[in-house]
Amino acid sequence: MSRAPYHPTSDQIELPLLLDCLSDPIRLAIVYNLARLARPEGELRCGDFNAFSGKSNLAYHFARLREAGLVRTRIVGTSRYMSLRRTDLEARFPGLLDAIIASAERDAARLQMPECVVAADAG
Amino acid sequence: MSRAPYHPTSDQIELPLLLDCLSDPIRLAIVYNLARLARPEGELRCGDFNAFSGKSNLAYHFARLREAGLVRTRIVGTSRYMSLRRTDLEARFPGLLDAIIASAERDAARLQMPECVVAADAG
Repeated sequence: MSRAPYHPTSDQIELPLLLDCLSDPIRLAIVYNLARLARPEGELRCGDFNAFSGKSNLAYHFARLREAGLVRTRIVGTSRYMSLRRTDLEARFPGLLDAIIASAERDAARLQMPECVVAADAG
Repeated sequence: MSRAPYHPTSDQIELPLLLDCLSDPIRLAIVYNLARLARPEGELRCGDFNAFSGKSNLAYHFARLREAGLVRTRIVGTSRYMSLRRTDLEARFPGLLDAIIASAERDAARLQMPECVVAADAG
């Protein structure tokens, strides 16, 4: 069984909320790792991010990302799958996500951006 | 006499701090108005933003923008002149500022973005 928690529509995505959401280094790292998947809107599981932070802290970050319209969460049984809402974000703010991802990539070492171990294979 | 308060160098500009800084609607509106000046790094005076917020609140926002590396502040006597650090920002994170400004422009009405009365003439 698959159920979906609240997601804003593309039109409901707000710029200040989106920028605030990505100003947190852990949330930026989550988005960065989702952006690097081979498939444009490929999925990662919550567990793939376990090295990033504690579990309850991660759950909070995932919810913030979902509510800001950055990430789509799909729940299947006890697993949560996350994907970047590239198409919706590009429709709402053309070029913005790519520019932020490119900036994060430039500073990946400086930001000590953690990487999902599965990132190369999954998605 | 002209004196300059602390400004980070281009290399010291940090992505999370920059995004956090622009997640505030008033600071985003200040940057948006500076970006719309005819000259790329044209200046506006503090007083030009008086309609945006209270004076002490504005002083706080200007300091945050300066410390994040977004705005250069030049003090001449009792006047403060602000300009957008376009060249430094473009060197540090190519395309990022333009993408954020374009997104703000798309949502100018929705964000109820205040406009500097002088914006058309100054800069």
